[in-house]
Amino acid sequence: MAHIDLGLDEQAHPGINGLARYRPETGALLQDLADALLHAPHPTLSQGERELIAAYVSDLNACTFCCESHSAFAAAQLPAGMPLVRQVREDLDAAPVEAKLRALLRIAGAVQRSGREVTTELVEAARVEGATDLEIHDAVLIAAAFCMFNRYVDGLGTVAPADPAGYTRAAEHIVAHGYATR
Amino acid sequence: MAHIDLGLDEQAHPGINGLARYRPETGALLQDLADALLHAPHPTLSQGERELIAAYVSDLNACTFCCESHSAFAAAQLPAGMPLVRQVREDLDAAPVEAKLRALLRIAGAVQRSGREVTTELVEAARVEGATDLEIHDAVLIAAAFCMFNRYVDGLGTVAPADPAGYTRAAEHIVAHGYATR
Repeated sequence: MAHIDLGLDEQAHPGINGLARYRPETGALLQDLADALLHAPHPTLSQGERELIAAYVSDLNACTFCCESHSAFAAAQLPAGMPLVRQVREDLDAAPVEAKLRALLRIAGAVQRSGREVTTELVEAARVEGATDLEIHDAVLIAAAFCMFNRYVDGLGTVAPADPAGYTRAAEHIVAHGYATR
Repeated sequence: MAHIDLGLDEQAHPGINGLARYRPETGALLQDLADALLHAPHPTLSQGERELIAAYVSDLNACTFCCESHSAFAAAQLPAGMPLVRQVREDLDAAPVEAKLRALLRIAGAVQRSGREVTTELVEAARVEGATDLEIHDAVLIAAAFCMFNRYVDGLGTVAPADPAGYTRAAEHIVAHGYATR
């Protein structure tokens, strides 16, 4: 049960969904931000790749709701599906992702610890693999945003469904419609 | 110098300002989020109190630009000004703030470490001092949001002006106009 009274059925509106309904003024902005980062058209990073960054950071932050959600959303939009998502979460160095994406995920992992952990070396390593300024920017901002979303969801003690089917259903909605409110 | 080419004079657009211009699609949403959290009308928490939470978390994250900025914005909107902001940053337990605000700042400090650090005890301690559900929600979300803003600003290696006058000028603008883009 959440730390505050959300005034709704928490099982029907788990994680950030109940929070967005409790406080629609900020909820709409957070949904639009998630859409801009993860679902809106991007010149080079696919929706699956961006969701993978979100899932990876949420796993590092041990946020069950966000990690299960974005793992499902990544799996639904990546050709290699959930097995790849699990490999990245379990051992990034050994996971079969292209070198550029691995370098961006390493930057995201640094951001999870602290913005000050992103070194010139990590950024140069991504550039050597072909990463653009926009890709480096977006990897940092997606990772930073999930350090917010994860803390928001867990800091208020919201519910994370135990049944994987809920995350799969949510993935179908996100793939089809994204997150945006307008 | 930032890790990526922002295509602008970084001294004239330090910290998040240059990032918002580099990527206006996300910049506008982040500015609107800051406005909703820190500047928009609130039933009980003043703008100065909300800016104090932002400054406190930014200090814990060692983000110079955000800490100096929001310390100046808090000082400009709190009757006790910068001396109080410095006392809170240096020793929250001893700082002369009201008990409810101290309890909310303790929740914010827990969020800075991890959302999972927010315990029922911390929430109950805030309630005992009169904190409402909305105040607890907003303290958690402000703290979580600054775990994003701080990582974004430092993760991309942006410039933080050394001259305090820049932050004072920015405070005048924020007090008068807020952060919103629309």
